Amino acid sequence: MDRATYDKGMKIRRETLGDAYVDKAVAGIDDFTREFQEMVTTYCWGEVWGREGLDRKTRSIINLAMISTLNRQHELAAHIRGAINNGVSRDEIKEVLLQVGIYAGVPAMVDSFRTAKAVLAEIDGDGK
Amino acid sequence: MDRATYDKGMKIRRETLGDAYVDKAVAGIDDFTREFQEMVTTYCWGEVWGREGLDRKTRSIINLAMISTLNRQHELAAHIRGAINNGVSRDEIKEVLLQVGIYAGVPAMVDSFRTAKAVLAEIDGDGK
Amino acid sequence: MDRATYDKGMKIRRETLGDAYVDKAVAGIDDFTREFQEMVTTYCWGEVWGREGLDRKTRSIINLAMISTLNRQHELAAHIRGAINNGVSRDEIKEVLLQVGIYAGVPAMVDSFRTAKAVLAEIDGDGK
Amino acid sequence: MDRATYDKGMKIRRETLGDAYVDKAVAGIDDFTREFQEMVTTYCWGEVWGREGLDRKTRSIINLAMISTLNRQHELAAHIRGAINNGVSRDEIKEVLLQVGIYAGVPAMVDSFRTAKAVLAEIDGDGK
Amino acid sequence: MDRATYDKGMKIRRETLGDAYVDKAVAGIDDFTREFQEMVTTYCWGEVWGREGLDRKTRSIINLAMISTLNRQHELAAHIRGAINNGVSRDEIKEVLLQVGIYAGVPAMVDSFRTAKAVLAEIDGDGK
Amino acid sequence: MDRATYDKGMKIRRETLGDAYVDKAVAGIDDFTREFQEMVTTYCWGEVWGREGLDRKTRSIINLAMISTLNRQHELAAHIRGAINNGVSRDEIKEVLLQVGIYAGVPAMVDSFRTAKAVLAEIDGDGK
Repeated sequence: MDRATYDKGMKIRRETLGDAYVDKAVAGIDDFTREFQEMVTTYCWGEVWGREGLDRKTRSIINLAMISTLNRQHELAAHIRGAINNGVSRDEIKEVLLQVGIYAGVPAMVDSFRTAKAVLAEIDGDGK
Repeated sequence: MDRATYDKGMKIRRETLGDAYVDKAVAGIDDFTREFQEMVTTYCWGEVWGREGLDRKTRSIINLAMISTLNRQHELAAHIRGAINNGVSRDEIKEVLLQVGIYAGVPAMVDSFRTAKAVLAEIDGDGK
Repeated sequence: MDRATYDKGMKIRRETLGDAYVDKAVAGIDDFTREFQEMVTTYCWGEVWGREGLDRKTRSIINLAMISTLNRQHELAAHIRGAINNGVSRDEIKEVLLQVGIYAGVPAMVDSFRTAKAVLAEIDGDGK
Repeated sequence: MDRATYDKGMKIRRETLGDAYVDKAVAGIDDFTREFQEMVTTYCWGEVWGREGLDRKTRSIINLAMISTLNRQHELAAHIRGAINNGVSRDEIKEVLLQVGIYAGVPAMVDSFRTAKAVLAEIDGDGK
Repeated sequence: MDRATYDKGMKIRRETLGDAYVDKAVAGIDDFTREFQEMVTTYCWGEVWGREGLDRKTRSIINLAMISTLNRQHELAAHIRGAINNGVSRDEIKEVLLQVGIYAGVPAMVDSFRTAKAVLAEIDGDGK
Repeated sequence: MDRATYDKGMKIRRETLGDAYVDKAVAGIDDFTREFQEMVTTYCWGEVWGREGLDRKTRSIINLAMISTLNRQHELAAHIRGAINNGVSRDEIKEVLLQVGIYAGVPAMVDSFRTAKAVLAEIDGDGK
């Protein structure tokens, strides 16, 4: 692994998903999950999110669409939060999920709206 | 079906996928495919693409990501062309597909780059 | 959106999924989910379920098979209940899910039988 | 493998997919594909298609929906032909595929209509 | 169903998933799930797991990869336990899941590591 | 990108997929595909295939199962060839694909056997 890419990735990962989320992931690292955590931080966050060709807001929008299509609700919840942190508005999240409904089908849209609504309610609660 | 939404959808569909593509689809309409064509034009292109909350460039980017994830190469080819028509640059298409590789896996990325490269070569040939 | 299609869809949706389920969905509507709920009711329930070419029992059977394949357990639970309401017998649900096991694989069948069994137990409890 | 179940399966397979299709599959059997062909005939066609709880027409309808969702165009083509042999009308095939569009998404519907239309044209040609 | 294959399958199923797991599955059998349980034991465990061409350790490794890709967390949990029983080490499970991350994407890897870590913690607790 | 990991990855990629295949991929590199090719070689082949925890034969077996499940026939063809190069026998490929049939469903098994049979016939032709 390339240390500079790892460090760049960790910075973007924290700025997107939030320190609370990443602190928890990092605190759980053990011999079973060490390489997995390094691989996610370096390749996903450092190499790809660290590229200049798309801004982070657009990358978040892409992720909402892909992760909804892949039916991965845990990851979707993290990336709804990440999308808000990267400047995607609630109305824009809504638009992405309506488009998911057309291309990936109604059940994908239903699940994603359920997850998104729960995360947005948590965020509203956080601010209290 | 709502005629106004159908008409709006047909306009956006033509502007995105090109008249040649849509003319061919429309010419093939028969009793078996009539409702299917109307449903795609009205709901997909009229209701969702016709909404104001995201610009067409962003909607094209979302589609490249989702359709790559869904492994639908015919549709992907049409939407690579649509993305170019909607102002997505080749470098931006590249960025979307690299991000597909991380989230939907390497085989998805390989297939999507193959399809994209073929369509871009066709477009270059078209201009001659 | 076409109001007549929405109204037709809402009627079929209520007859299939039950008033309790739909009342809860409708009660949760807010600015984030309004268009999503309208789109589901109009296009899914009004335009497609409202068509005459297949009876509702057959449409329910199709949905059990597709939603099992798509791995969407929340939606599957709703449509198990809908299938019962549309006249699909428990033995017929069993047959559909055995066929799912052959074509979509054993893990899909295992998950769908677990969900179906839980919903059928709830229905039995409802009658008490 | 149970010989009686194999024989029952082969009979149903031939009645559904047609002798021409099955003859070709059987003619291609070698050491690499022997167990695969036996497993398909015995479990898929003998054990599940051979069950009494659903008629063959309904099983064909289920398969069109599942195989469209799974994006397996070769198998879909065979089962479009099988559906016709089992008494599913062209209008009913259309209805199934429109419902696929809602639940599995527009690209699934587009691909399935393309495949179905090609197979139906072949069948029309066969009759000449 | 062939009784000898069923019995062979039940033996392998118990040796892989453990008596506690299978006893619970068997205890839950009723008219709704009888054929489903027989089909899983006979075809999955008897016919395929009972074949000689691959050892059980390799079959467990294959299952971890496939079931991760299919996003079936309940089944994955059972087969993490089965993999340990069949001699797959924790380090080997880690390797399989890192490879899942490359081919099926990061969200698949994240979910599978979460499930695996929880099962391994349960196993450690079992030994107390 | 880390040059040493790229070089290690290129060596493993060539040993697995063959020089002819990789030479063709490398010859096609242009501005659109450069980072994509580097990412595949470095992360997929260098970081993951380059790890010591599983031998290459086992990694090939895992890939046949995952790529069959993902329905990516181009990649599957390349990895059938890779599996042979890494010491997987034809009988072992058969066993993997029969197991695919149980867990990912019959249509996945049918497509994978078709692809595998075609590649094995090509290999036999190559040796003439």
